[in-house]
Amino acid sequence: MSKVTVSRHAHFNAAHRLHNASWTVEKNEAVFGKCNNPHYHGHNYELIVSVRGDVDPETGYVVDMKWLADLIEEQVEQRFDHKNLNEETEEFKVLNPTAENIAMVIWKLLRKEVAEALELKVTLYETPRNFVEYSG
Amino acid sequence: MSKVTVSRHAHFNAAHRLHNASWTVEKNEAVFGKCNNPHYHGHNYELIVSVRGDVDPETGYVVDMKWLADLIEEQVEQRFDHKNLNEETEEFKVLNPTAENIAMVIWKLLRKEVAEALELKVTLYETPRNFVEYSG
Amino acid sequence: MSKVTVSRHAHFNAAHRLHNASWTVEKNEAVFGKCNNPHYHGHNYELIVSVRGDVDPETGYVVDMKWLADLIEEQVEQRFDHKNLNEETEEFKVLNPTAENIAMVIWKLLRKEVAEALELKVTLYETPRNFVEYSG
Amino acid sequence: MSKVTVSRHAHFNAAHRLHNASWTVEKNEAVFGKCNNPHYHGHNYELIVSVRGDVDPETGYVVDMKWLADLIEEQVEQRFDHKNLNEETEEFKVLNPTAENIAMVIWKLLRKEVAEALELKVTLYETPRNFVEYSG
Amino acid sequence: MSKVTVSRHAHFNAAHRLHNASWTVEKNEAVFGKCNNPHYHGHNYELIVSVRGDVDPETGYVVDMKWLADLIEEQVEQRFDHKNLNEETEEFKVLNPTAENIAMVIWKLLRKEVAEALELKVTLYETPRNFVEYSG
Amino acid sequence: MSKVTVSRHAHFNAAHRLHNASWTVEKNEAVFGKCNNPHYHGHNYELIVSVRGDVDPETGYVVDMKWLADLIEEQVEQRFDHKNLNEETEEFKVLNPTAENIAMVIWKLLRKEVAEALELKVTLYETPRNFVEYSG
Repeated sequence: MSKVTVSRHAHFNAAHRLHNASWTVEKNEAVFGKCNNPHYHGHNYELIVSVRGDVDPETGYVVDMKWLADLIEEQVEQRFDHKNLNEETEEFKVLNPTAENIAMVIWKLLRKEVAEALELKVTLYETPRNFVEYSG
Repeated sequence: MSKVTVSRHAHFNAAHRLHNASWTVEKNEAVFGKCNNPHYHGHNYELIVSVRGDVDPETGYVVDMKWLADLIEEQVEQRFDHKNLNEETEEFKVLNPTAENIAMVIWKLLRKEVAEALELKVTLYETPRNFVEYSG
Repeated sequence: MSKVTVSRHAHFNAAHRLHNASWTVEKNEAVFGKCNNPHYHGHNYELIVSVRGDVDPETGYVVDMKWLADLIEEQVEQRFDHKNLNEETEEFKVLNPTAENIAMVIWKLLRKEVAEALELKVTLYETPRNFVEYSG
Repeated sequence: MSKVTVSRHAHFNAAHRLHNASWTVEKNEAVFGKCNNPHYHGHNYELIVSVRGDVDPETGYVVDMKWLADLIEEQVEQRFDHKNLNEETEEFKVLNPTAENIAMVIWKLLRKEVAEALELKVTLYETPRNFVEYSG
Repeated sequence: MSKVTVSRHAHFNAAHRLHNASWTVEKNEAVFGKCNNPHYHGHNYELIVSVRGDVDPETGYVVDMKWLADLIEEQVEQRFDHKNLNEETEEFKVLNPTAENIAMVIWKLLRKEVAEALELKVTLYETPRNFVEYSG
Repeated sequence: MSKVTVSRHAHFNAAHRLHNASWTVEKNEAVFGKCNNPHYHGHNYELIVSVRGDVDPETGYVVDMKWLADLIEEQVEQRFDHKNLNEETEEFKVLNPTAENIAMVIWKLLRKEVAEALELKVTLYETPRNFVEYSG
């Protein structure tokens, strides 16, 4: 009855390219267009992490926002900020770094660290005009 | 388990007036106030179209964002941008062009073009301070 | 089938401090950090009130946005704007004014005034980077 | 040495059409394109009024922001909000209501009411992507 | 000829009250209204610090943005964040903490630390709707 | 007397790395930190192009915004969007692609195409928190 969702903004900058290694060059270009550029392009990813649960009557918090901000920094920013996602991260060595896949990877990284009783949702803006949401 | 929502921003500018033809002038003024102005007023409508579905393992996409942007341009922008909604569109010749009704009309126009397995949601900002959401 | 959500932005500025009177000074400082400052700090709270229901076929409205704006002014802005939440409001004399608790209090104040057939949700930005949502 | 600029946001919604009555229909269409639509279209105009002057040592104000907000409401919002600029305002009966001309008209309306020692600047967003500035 | 302006966003939250100790209670209320509340209210101050100068041909920088961010944290955020400006800061023990005066104080604090050859400007949003600018 | 500034938003996404080829690896790392990553990172660059001049009494325009938008697309977006600035552009083969240098390059590209009587200014957001301005 008293479930509240709390959300925290964060951000990281990265280079990426969309590519399916099992396809021909031509099919990659046809499907991914400019996003397939072999020299990479990049984005300012704006991230919103939302946690839903009961409000602790002693603190008035669902979770401590400082804890959540630190968790995002440790699990997401340190891993992806100022990186080339395809070249420099374990997560996207094989997996195509679309916004959808990045959001799902971030969700899984955070899910392990957030108590099971809490619901978790990730919203990821690839640009101010395109964004994705994933909640498991 | 792997359903992701992807969203795309778009926009159009239009004139409109709120009016119920079956009411008296006085009732229209009482209910719709300044929005009933017979000379029209207008808005920059900011539109967010959200599509929810499984991520294709080959592309990493729910849908191609370029396809979604083109669909919005064809179905919404070409129809409503720089138009007088009451005077120049089939959809609002009779139907009152409130934000609620515009969102429902846009949803129906897009619903026909989006695969059935995908959920669809429309968010429409009439001003930066007022917005509506419709998902069928 | 035709349920639409309509949302209205509003805002108020207030001072507050986070504090649990049943705890020691040390525990309050350890848990709430800078937010426990006995001299208070403050925020520009940005509020979004969302109401979900059927669209009235005569007006094309879920609810009249002017009515909703007036309700928020009467129930929320007049009560909390330019106030010290801990010192000057009945609601937070005892209850800790976290964003979670403020959102729940606002929801209860509005719930009494909104028709039962309508769903109600409150989104409260404590800063542009932190926000909470409550829908009962 | 201690000149400070203070700025206040405001907004109004209006319908307009761009048109030069001394031109042919064809030339109007060629120059103004969709903006020449005889049935009008519209915008949410977002206005920023900036006043620059010395800080009064007694108040710490350049001008009282409430006074500035009231002045904008009286001179701009009451005149243009929810209006058809071409049909219903004296200012744009003849003058073409481009963003440039609207900004200049607003500046002149406010200039008469603001003390001569203060500099005045008007910034007008016609859309979130287009804006104009005028300072006399 | 190659002067460029570089700007950095920062933010801090604080409580304040507007008050002139040499005036009567009545005059303070008449001039400052709700902002005179003796129990304080508060804001999320959003700060933009702009530095203008020649671009160093070796780095391509006017100044290192990390240096600028650290300077703002040291001189502004550590001093004012989560503070009661009237009660807890040397700068506003006597000086009325209007947005104009806060911007001038911040400018002076930073001016001492920024090389003389560089121009300095401070933009301070007291709310998303009110802001001030000061450049010496 | 009637000079007005008109501004247009645009955007492009690109990868880059900050690097001075005449320095050692160590000096590059010390000065540019994470921005020196040899695998690149990237940004959503948000661009505002401002043109200042007299308002044409026949059109009410300083310049046609469609012309300005097309010019930006042709000179900036086609050149830099979805590109690796260091690897794939003539402009930044040697020149370090800092925000300062990118803004100056864009200004020079546009300056050649804008009539001499008009003043030109470029504002470039590298992230929502960092931006630069250049006007020749």
